[in-house]
Amino acid sequence: METGKFITFEGIEGVGKSTNIAHFTGILEQRGREVLTTREPGGTPMAERIRALVAEHGDEAMPDIAELLLVFAARSLHVNNVIQPALAAGTWVVCDRFTDSSRAYQGGGRGLPKADIDRLADWVHGDLWPDLTILLDAPVDVGMERAGRRSEPDRFEAEEGEFFTRVRETYLQLAVAEPDRFVVVDATRDLQLVKRDIGAIAEAVLQS
Amino acid sequence: METGKFITFEGIEGVGKSTNIAHFTGILEQRGREVLTTREPGGTPMAERIRALVAEHGDEAMPDIAELLLVFAARSLHVNNVIQPALAAGTWVVCDRFTDSSRAYQGGGRGLPKADIDRLADWVHGDLWPDLTILLDAPVDVGMERAGRRSEPDRFEAEEGEFFTRVRETYLQLAVAEPDRFVVVDATRDLQLVKRDIGAIAEAVLQS
Repeated sequence: METGKFITFEGIEGVGKSTNIAHFTGILEQRGREVLTTREPGGTPMAERIRALVAEHGDEAMPDIAELLLVFAARSLHVNNVIQPALAAGTWVVCDRFTDSSRAYQGGGRGLPKADIDRLADWVHGDLWPDLTILLDAPVDVGMERAGRRSEPDRFEAEEGEFFTRVRETYLQLAVAEPDRFVVVDATRDLQLVKRDIGAIAEAVLQS
Repeated sequence: METGKFITFEGIEGVGKSTNIAHFTGILEQRGREVLTTREPGGTPMAERIRALVAEHGDEAMPDIAELLLVFAARSLHVNNVIQPALAAGTWVVCDRFTDSSRAYQGGGRGLPKADIDRLADWVHGDLWPDLTILLDAPVDVGMERAGRRSEPDRFEAEEGEFFTRVRETYLQLAVAEPDRFVVVDATRDLQLVKRDIGAIAEAVLQS
């Protein structure tokens, strides 16, 4: 059986990942693909409990390294218990965030060393990397303004603009470093134009 | 102000850690020391939630690497939010398990590489190592028989004897490798004899 494709969406808060993931997945399904839509951190019952720990504002300080280890523990559960079995069964997996988020948020944002993050990635998911990563890119003020319209901010959404500037810059550097895997979509434009691009990317990946 | 001493108890299930920690701590307190008794994984509200994830039997498979990363995430919270502040305030910290448990259970027991565990230890707690580690040692059948008298086994207690044999052997190797930090106490003997040894160790550390 042919294995499914593994496709991830990345980007800072407020760039429209949810809407565009739904659009992208809808096209794949219309074309007869079995698709699993999932997210990180999370995607399994235990990994969702880890997500809650990572995201919440508590009274307790969260060291940067604890945050990173929790995210990769959740990823290990997700890869082992959901993503790999789905791909092996021929299902396409469309995931909201993956290791590029760790590089961007915990690496670029928090300043943890890239080499250590990549070592954890190698340990947790080895050769499993996305076949395609769609980076929805927008300047930080655009994303924050849109994200701000939503309810209660989580521990990440409460960060300052400079943090997200470093996150965005790291994403763009990753895209430059791996042009074969990344497609960068300008998410500042009208949503209909963005969705048109997403549709074209879906058609291209269906034919690849 | 003089910093407190950091003392850990190690050993497989059923060797009497709880009883002997209470005895040891009681002596320190009688001699006027401020003592914080704590445990791993756990010791903070968030770290206790991580402990629950690690220990429970769920429907979901737990990859070895996820277990290791969760334990070190909990340790990071514990060290940062509880152990280091207490030691800095002059409080002695007596902890049921620390990184030697990760080396013994996830290293010796699960077979994860020692070098990777030590890299995580360095990352999470740097130069902070126990001033003294008391290893309560007993053959696996003794420990398992005693642990078996307790209620519902957790995910570790449900492991087979060979697993605990590897854990015990790793503990003994660690003690040989760091004779200045470790004291090995034969926990197969009558509890009164074990407690007499524990008392003597407490007196020695009070005078050191």
